[in-house]
Amino acid sequence: MTPNQYTPEEPISSIATALAPAALGIVRVSGKGCIALVSKVFSRPKALLEAAGNTLVYGWIIDEDKKIDEVMLAVYRAPKSFTGEDMVEIFCHGGPAVVMAIQNLMLKIGFRQANRGEYTFRAFINGKTDLTRAEAVKEIIDSHTDVSRSHAAGRLAGSLFTEIDSIKKLIIDTLAAIEVEIEYPEDEETIADSFDREDIETAARRLEALVDSWRGEKLYQDGARVVLAGRTNAGKSSLFNAILKEERAIVSDIEGTTRDWLESWASINGIPVRLFDTAGLRQTSDVIEAQGVEISRSLVQDADVVLYLVDGTQGMNDEDRQFIEKCEEPLIVVYTKSDKGNSDNTGRCDRVCSANIAGVSPSCKISSKTGEGMAELFAQIYGILTAGIAGSTTERSQAGLGSARQKEAVAAALESVRHALVSADDNYTLDAVVQDLEDALDSLGEVTGDVTPDDVLGSIFANFCVGK
Amino acid sequence: MTPNQYTPEEPISSIATALAPAALGIVRVSGKGCIALVSKVFSRPKALLEAAGNTLVYGWIIDEDKKIDEVMLAVYRAPKSFTGEDMVEIFCHGGPAVVMAIQNLMLKIGFRQANRGEYTFRAFINGKTDLTRAEAVKEIIDSHTDVSRSHAAGRLAGSLFTEIDSIKKLIIDTLAAIEVEIEYPEDEETIADSFDREDIETAARRLEALVDSWRGEKLYQDGARVVLAGRTNAGKSSLFNAILKEERAIVSDIEGTTRDWLESWASINGIPVRLFDTAGLRQTSDVIEAQGVEISRSLVQDADVVLYLVDGTQGMNDEDRQFIEKCEEPLIVVYTKSDKGNSDNTGRCDRVCSANIAGVSPSCKISSKTGEGMAELFAQIYGILTAGIAGSTTERSQAGLGSARQKEAVAAALESVRHALVSADDNYTLDAVVQDLEDALDSLGEVTGDVTPDDVLGSIFANFCVGK
Repeated sequence: MTPNQYTPEEPISSIATALAPAALGIVRVSGKGCIALVSKVFSRPKALLEAAGNTLVYGWIIDEDKKIDEVMLAVYRAPKSFTGEDMVEIFCHGGPAVVMAIQNLMLKIGFRQANRGEYTFRAFINGKTDLTRAEAVKEIIDSHTDVSRSHAAGRLAGSLFTEIDSIKKLIIDTLAAIEVEIEYPEDEETIADSFDREDIETAARRLEALVDSWRGEKLYQDGARVVLAGRTNAGKSSLFNAILKEERAIVSDIEGTTRDWLESWASINGIPVRLFDTAGLRQTSDVIEAQGVEISRSLVQDADVVLYLVDGTQGMNDEDRQFIEKCEEPLIVVYTKSDKGNSDNTGRCDRVCSANIAGVSPSCKISSKTGEGMAELFAQIYGILTAGIAGSTTERSQAGLGSARQKEAVAAALESVRHALVSADDNYTLDAVVQDLEDALDSLGEVTGDVTPDDVLGSIFANFCVGK
Repeated sequence: MTPNQYTPEEPISSIATALAPAALGIVRVSGKGCIALVSKVFSRPKALLEAAGNTLVYGWIIDEDKKIDEVMLAVYRAPKSFTGEDMVEIFCHGGPAVVMAIQNLMLKIGFRQANRGEYTFRAFINGKTDLTRAEAVKEIIDSHTDVSRSHAAGRLAGSLFTEIDSIKKLIIDTLAAIEVEIEYPEDEETIADSFDREDIETAARRLEALVDSWRGEKLYQDGARVVLAGRTNAGKSSLFNAILKEERAIVSDIEGTTRDWLESWASINGIPVRLFDTAGLRQTSDVIEAQGVEISRSLVQDADVVLYLVDGTQGMNDEDRQFIEKCEEPLIVVYTKSDKGNSDNTGRCDRVCSANIAGVSPSCKISSKTGEGMAELFAQIYGILTAGIAGSTTERSQAGLGSARQKEAVAAALESVRHALVSADDNYTLDAVVQDLEDALDSLGEVTGDVTPDDVLGSIFANFCVGK
């Protein structure tokens, strides 16, 4: 969506549910006159036209006497709606053919197909939401684990907005005091009592905490890549399935078997993880094997954690040692089949993985069959993924950032605030300090959407799904 | 669902939308006390408890002070709801993690996970719908093309119910007249004026039309298999893509590349068609090729129509002729690349396909590039698929049957009615005719659900999706 596509009030329509067979589906419309438009293809136009806001009306969607589907209409009257405009949500049967037929009919009778995020955009320009909450809408839809969802829900409820607002207040109060000082100078115009250093230091600390939160938040949003490697029969498929059985992530949107390897989302202590199984890469002819080795190598190179599996009853051989020594990614040696007893040959090899994290043991013994050692393995993976991340608990109480865009703006605000402190230390003029603090406010305004340029707005909402 | 799982009024809950990232998702609950139950995890319990039926209430779903999601609740009060019970539909954000978190919370606070089709089943036992409409709900959700959807919508609106009801009336009127005759016999108790032969013949004709409708309805529901075969470079992939580009079916639920062949749903003049491309089966090593030939053969054997592609610029060779002569399935020879000019060698080969349909030309010339000949090809495929199907128009005006179950019951009713006619011809006693007509009524009652045994009900609703 670019600024010239801003057409507030124009009636827009789109499918709002996933297009797959299900009990129910939703087509939602918004904009001026949208209720009257829908009434033209509704079996009970009078009931719809007279419906109060926040009520449901039963009937059929009809197209020139052809019955399309039996529906319930949720009617919203401006400004009491998600977008702040008149809205109708058409609850129909969840067959893709039905949902598409209704959406196509809406386009036929005068609605425009909504752009990505256009409903939320309208909610934003109509003052129904700020940008942090708007971005949380996208985030909550995309979340892969319950922990990710709960972080997003916090921002949707306004945790980040409140924190930003409270930091802004510290800065605004300081600015107000300085303005008085400038207008009624008792002293020369340099740093004086009016500059409450403590307030601005508090603001800096809290901005820092927000910036620091982003690495952890990003991990819960985007997830990490964990790759299972090891010789044939080391137990890769068993472990892959055991992890999925225990901790399959809430949605698996990767086609399991379309590629030459298996992958699926899993939840490792709340962190969404794309789990890759390189098993099967060597099971066919030579040409295929060569390809397989190549694919396997690139999967390992992109991994955030490599689980290198060794059959615990057989122990490590030279091939294993060679792989482990050459691998530069964080790696955990996993001795499998612990239920069958272990070979003596399970001593750690000499490789010191360059990315290994101090304090994280690089090996553990597990049984995919009995589940023995799995919790320990999860803890090790979790430890590597969250190493160095501030406050990486699953139950975060503080506000955290929800997007890279927010992080950049908050980091800019932090820089301005720090600059104000330096200016004060160096006894710059009050005007210079005012400039720094006003820059900080501008940056924070971008986070919440008070002073966000159009092109930034456009790129934010362009990442949304259609219908939201 | 078996009869001992019938627990009317027990509060049930389930996800009603497809579990994939989307703008909106729905969790629906039904049963006695369901509104009070939901109010325990709702931010505005009083507003919800006091809400009138058919209204929407805004708020948050909360789990012990943890905010789950910002939602709208659609409140329905018995008997004005889909199930006829109190109901709440929770409209939340469409992230799978959100939808599942809400559903899990519902189970935690006392709802039971709904069985497949349990909402529709409750609607049925509460007299909100008959069986033909209930089955149409499943049908409309599963429909693959707009024509399939429109047939289902007709049944959902009651077209089949009305037709069955009207046929029942013919039989009931005749029975009533016979009863009078039996109670006040003017003559001996044999066929007399009371038996309105014309009414019963009309009933038989209309039942026959319904039975005949099933083959066509089944085709629009289940679809047909069309397989593209031919030598390498005959243009299979191009045609596959050209058909999909033009007529991709409304939903493609088959993973495109998981198997050694390509397949996708397409719409051929409104008929849902699973289109198979056997291309690429020969492109790798010998072992793979052998497997490919085997797979190709079995795809062809299961085909409803085989499109055998011949490069029109090269013409047919011995390999082509061999395939065509051996193939026993309905086959159309498709000369491709007509935009590049044709070889002289496009004369039809001598093979007479055993399943060929009279009047349907077994060959056509097309260009996947320009689209030339595509309409003709579609017409030929359509002709083969609908050959011998009564009234196989896309815009059917009559009522048609929606399931194999309905077809069996209507066929049984037809048999009883025919038997009544024979009994009358043979001057059997009126009692015998009465018995036949009552049998017919019983069978028709099974179609609409007046006299449907519990196990039949169970198997009908077990085929529904969860949440419906």
